[in-house]
Amino acid sequence: MSEIIEPRVLKGFRDYLPEAEIERASLVKILEGVFRSFGFVPIDTPALEYAEILLGKGGGETDKQVYRFADHGGRDVALRFDLTVPFARFMAEHVEELYLPFRRYHMAKVWRGENTQRGRYREFMQCDFDIVGTDSAMADADIVLLIRDAFDSLGVGGFKININHRGLFNRFLSRNGLSDRSAFVLRSVDKKDKITEAELRSLLETEVSATECGVILDYIRPLDGFLATLDKLEALAGGPAEDSKRLRTIYGAFQATRMAVAWNDAASGNSHSDSDTETLVLNPGITRGLDYYTGVVFETKLDAMPEIGSVCGGGRYDELASLYTTRRLPGVGAAIGLDRLMTALEALGKTHGRAGYTEVLVLNLEEDFGTKYQQIAAVMRRAGIVAEVFAEKRKLAQQFAYAEKKGIPFAVVLGESEAAKKCLTVKVLASRETFEVESASEAADRIRELLVP
Amino acid sequence: MSEIIEPRVLKGFRDYLPEAEIERASLVKILEGVFRSFGFVPIDTPALEYAEILLGKGGGETDKQVYRFADHGGRDVALRFDLTVPFARFMAEHVEELYLPFRRYHMAKVWRGENTQRGRYREFMQCDFDIVGTDSAMADADIVLLIRDAFDSLGVGGFKININHRGLFNRFLSRNGLSDRSAFVLRSVDKKDKITEAELRSLLETEVSATECGVILDYIRPLDGFLATLDKLEALAGGPAEDSKRLRTIYGAFQATRMAVAWNDAASGNSHSDSDTETLVLNPGITRGLDYYTGVVFETKLDAMPEIGSVCGGGRYDELASLYTTRRLPGVGAAIGLDRLMTALEALGKTHGRAGYTEVLVLNLEEDFGTKYQQIAAVMRRAGIVAEVFAEKRKLAQQFAYAEKKGIPFAVVLGESEAAKKCLTVKVLASRETFEVESASEAADRIRELLVP
Repeated sequence: MSEIIEPRVLKGFRDYLPEAEIERASLVKILEGVFRSFGFVPIDTPALEYAEILLGKGGGETDKQVYRFADHGGRDVALRFDLTVPFARFMAEHVEELYLPFRRYHMAKVWRGENTQRGRYREFMQCDFDIVGTDSAMADADIVLLIRDAFDSLGVGGFKININHRGLFNRFLSRNGLSDRSAFVLRSVDKKDKITEAELRSLLETEVSATECGVILDYIRPLDGFLATLDKLEALAGGPAEDSKRLRTIYGAFQATRMAVAWNDAASGNSHSDSDTETLVLNPGITRGLDYYTGVVFETKLDAMPEIGSVCGGGRYDELASLYTTRRLPGVGAAIGLDRLMTALEALGKTHGRAGYTEVLVLNLEEDFGTKYQQIAAVMRRAGIVAEVFAEKRKLAQQFAYAEKKGIPFAVVLGESEAAKKCLTVKVLASRETFEVESASEAADRIRELLVP
Repeated sequence: MSEIIEPRVLKGFRDYLPEAEIERASLVKILEGVFRSFGFVPIDTPALEYAEILLGKGGGETDKQVYRFADHGGRDVALRFDLTVPFARFMAEHVEELYLPFRRYHMAKVWRGENTQRGRYREFMQCDFDIVGTDSAMADADIVLLIRDAFDSLGVGGFKININHRGLFNRFLSRNGLSDRSAFVLRSVDKKDKITEAELRSLLETEVSATECGVILDYIRPLDGFLATLDKLEALAGGPAEDSKRLRTIYGAFQATRMAVAWNDAASGNSHSDSDTETLVLNPGITRGLDYYTGVVFETKLDAMPEIGSVCGGGRYDELASLYTTRRLPGVGAAIGLDRLMTALEALGKTHGRAGYTEVLVLNLEEDFGTKYQQIAAVMRRAGIVAEVFAEKRKLAQQFAYAEKKGIPFAVVLGESEAAKKCLTVKVLASRETFEVESASEAADRIRELLVP
């Protein structure tokens, strides 16, 4: 045998051990449930695509981060670095087979050869959801309502969905003769929550006058409450228009569904996390630097951890797929940063710390009882209880240590003495209490009762 | 805007449109449920690893199929081509943090730059499950019982789990002076189900005598029934030993759990697909060419589609991770070919053909009713019904066409006339029947009753 190869993963990559993978699977399941409840459907696209598709004919700043190489056939290929570009290609390719508006979710890995400082990974999971093929305010509202349901379901505690409208901001800039510097202003203002007002002022004044700067800083200062802020922004932008009307519609839908009170229905009693304070915040400082967005934009922050930044951001765009089709495909969508969210949940002590799914360990005490052990486990499974037989006869202490490592709450014992008495012993591992039962199905019944929280 | 880039995927790669992805998600969910019910835990590993890790210091025949390149840091990296090699590296790296026996499942994509003829894809999903860190027959039995539960749960109809023991076969070969040609014989015999007996004879006789060939062909001819065949093989191999005893143990556990009858319990009434004919078949022709396997080996075939070959194969191995650690890690496991299985289910008409999850489409008839539409949908969701609001006001025919494309069974109508009467109309889309309700929660109650199959 040749020498041992050191087992290790690439820098910026990582294994998911069971506890982390169980946690991730549980988050994914919750999110899938919410996406589906809003009528979203899943899709998948290849991890590897033509580099030209992913990067465009030129290939810009992103290039350096992209895993790009020549495949066996000499094709210029790359690993996807996000789920948006593949989705654009997907829509251009399949729009005739599908229907519009198309609402899809996609949770999958992406790869970026980024600097690994500050906890950034080179392989991470994206979670995107979009409604494509409509300009409607209803679709914008759907995305915002979905974000609320998602974070309510994840049990992260309080959160704020910050929303803004790029069109409204542009109207304001135009009215103040700042249209020619809009990209600069948007990018600067986007830093508002990360730097001091003085720093922001210095930054802005490199390209706008002190007076203009004052006007901008006034605009981005929110008032108390969504509608008060909206009234102010609308006035500063020159009065009501489609953009401000749309924000009113979204806010109206958000408030009206807060308690899931339907038209003509009494309150259903399902309260949301926004019952006390407002979850939907009109934040005129949110611009999301990307040129891509043209309408509403949003970012979601956890009340308990605002410092980690947005855990769910997105917005409305005019053209999803103009690189690949002449067909106009406007849409609205957002992405949840699953890894960042998992880090946050862990820091908040909101993870489950579950090492395994097993509820019953059938101890292995006698080699000749193997078939009986398997029967007991099978009865448990038919009763909906997760059961496994310890694979080999070993010292009891070792089998209990295994149960503890896996967080297994119950053991079923069948040794010589149980066999003589024609019974089974059930052991509650946390309390070390035991009780006898006559059969595996009686054991299953008793354990099922005890498992109910 | 520059010219349009043709939207297309690489040869051997494909998109999953919603119907296919929904089907795949449904299979994955069923399999996850079965894996968990046996106490298996999920893990994940990076898609990209050091080429040395994936290919070993030499790098063999597989190389040509592997996507391998230099990353930004000049590292020699490759995309994983299976889940076994990464699992070996994972166990070597993490065994001290884990516990043994370790039972894990892993469902994830792998990549091989294979010839794309015969429906082979270059990106496909693997589904592996293993119990590592034990030599025990109980672990072998667990894998076989799990395979049965998995295929029962998938609803594929009848199937056969073909099992054999490489050790038993080797004993037989040694007894007949064929040990020096065992690799050749194993590889030849593995073709048994694909070629005629005459062809197999010609093949064997290139390296063994006519007499030896007769002995081999006699050995691999099964008798009627598992135990009759086992008695014969055991005799031809020189009598009882650990290998044949182990096959008896596995068969015993399989039969004893067939009905999930537990020790001391009456029959539970949960019948399995093997209630009439034997699902577990001792097939002395199954060898699985890989040198890797040392004990039991198995392959699973669907009764309705034996021609597609094995949909779940695996076996016992002595050393999982000897490339990366001196620690001995014996194990047993199997892999389900998810893509092949999906193809089979489709051919058998056992797929669900589900285009979406939506159960209720709230029609969009009046722009001013947007908030009310969102309220209705929210009430549905709180009642556990998947609901979406059609995103914009369009002709009814278009909204119904959308519902049909997505397979949505119900529509809720709130137009001017319903608003005047303070009611809602529910439309059953298949029958075009309609009924009036007073509120969204009444609509939810009625629809929920109708949704129960």
